[in-house]
Amino acid sequence: MKINILTLFPEIVRPYFTNSIPAKAIEKDIFSVDIVNIRDFALDKHRTCDDEPYGGGAGMVLKPEPVSLALEKVTENLKTPVIIYPSPAGIPFDQSTAYELSKEKELVFLCGRYEGLDQRIIDYYDIKEYSIGDYVLSAGELAALVIVDAVIRLIDGVITNESLREESFSSGLLEYPHYTRPAVFKGVPVPDVLLSGHHENIRQWRLRKSIERTLDRRPDLLHNKALSEEEKAILENILEERGRRNERDSGN
Amino acid sequence: MKINILTLFPEIVRPYFTNSIPAKAIEKDIFSVDIVNIRDFALDKHRTCDDEPYGGGAGMVLKPEPVSLALEKVTENLKTPVIIYPSPAGIPFDQSTAYELSKEKELVFLCGRYEGLDQRIIDYYDIKEYSIGDYVLSAGELAALVIVDAVIRLIDGVITNESLREESFSSGLLEYPHYTRPAVFKGVPVPDVLLSGHHENIRQWRLRKSIERTLDRRPDLLHNKALSEEEKAILENILEERGRRNERDSGN
Repeated sequence: MKINILTLFPEIVRPYFTNSIPAKAIEKDIFSVDIVNIRDFALDKHRTCDDEPYGGGAGMVLKPEPVSLALEKVTENLKTPVIIYPSPAGIPFDQSTAYELSKEKELVFLCGRYEGLDQRIIDYYDIKEYSIGDYVLSAGELAALVIVDAVIRLIDGVITNESLREESFSSGLLEYPHYTRPAVFKGVPVPDVLLSGHHENIRQWRLRKSIERTLDRRPDLLHNKALSEEEKAILENILEERGRRNERDSGN
Repeated sequence: MKINILTLFPEIVRPYFTNSIPAKAIEKDIFSVDIVNIRDFALDKHRTCDDEPYGGGAGMVLKPEPVSLALEKVTENLKTPVIIYPSPAGIPFDQSTAYELSKEKELVFLCGRYEGLDQRIIDYYDIKEYSIGDYVLSAGELAALVIVDAVIRLIDGVITNESLREESFSSGLLEYPHYTRPAVFKGVPVPDVLLSGHHENIRQWRLRKSIERTLDRRPDLLHNKALSEEEKAILENILEERGRRNERDSGN
């Protein structure tokens, strides 16, 4: 995969690619990255990249010309680039989008600054606008890296496949809690079942924890998921137990 | 505000704070940041920070002792630290959480690696687990920076208040599109109304664009929002127009 990142702050973006998992994947030629400074494509001697919004209002807007020139330069040798503009007004980026993007050959990220991008750039280049969450960031660099990170770890060879199988969202449930040595930490022991060596009991315990967590923190995920018979039975059991506990606590 | 970041990769985190908006806010003493390497608190000469999960399974788990020592060192001089662990299994982080956190005096971020943190650390230190979106990242650093960025820009003096007033989510709607010079770009003119100088027409056009966008990309936000009378009228008008267009297009 070829990744291109267009930004006004290359120095914020670069260190992500020179450390840990991304650095190893680049070394293994699983993907390459090219970071381009939009300011290098500014037209005047002051290298201006922003201008006032038509219609008034706060803040500045990224000028279309430098962005357009940078985009055309970066994409001139690409065959099927997918151009992504992270923006809180975009459609939600989620794990299924990450899987789709992980199959692409060429991704181009356009990092916004100021109030945002001229809408004509988005329309002309058929740019995909993705939102990484329901909050506003001061700029697009972190959001672009979040998308890159979620995507590249799904490419074969970047991390072990076993790690991908049981994580949050892969099953539509949040992941179960983890424990490692020591067996007792701050007076709290690891749950007995995890020390039992009984694989089937461990699997069931973890599934139950996943369902409990999802119920408590993300009931919306349970609504949208087609539960297996086993998952349904566990969910019913959790709800029954909680019902009994509530009755007991209220003194009935 | 005091921000502490506990990480195994300080070099990924640091450049965010030495550029642009965060750097200026630090210079103005609006917040300070301390980045701590968890590995400095490892107990053995190999500085080991991970270990195998109890109960088996893929990947490694962050050892509790170095994290615990790092946390206790960092929080020993803090009064009311809020400790945050970014994790896909957390509760969703959104703009209202960003506003709440922007009023805190001390935030501590614990960046996960590998499969995650020992659950006893999360329980013992009463750590808040936040998810920045429905996808999985290879580590917690980017997610911690996303939360930091969403939070600090809401602190007085970091960016202009006018910029905060009209952005996505502040009104429960996505933001309207932006335009700047030139008036015609790639053959596409800026919408006439934005050149009109008529403030009330511009306000109405932008509100309509916001509602159209939210309807197309995030109908869930419209469901959860209490619409004003004006917004209701615009939404009805959009739906009517689209209904008429559909009828025309289907030849009736």
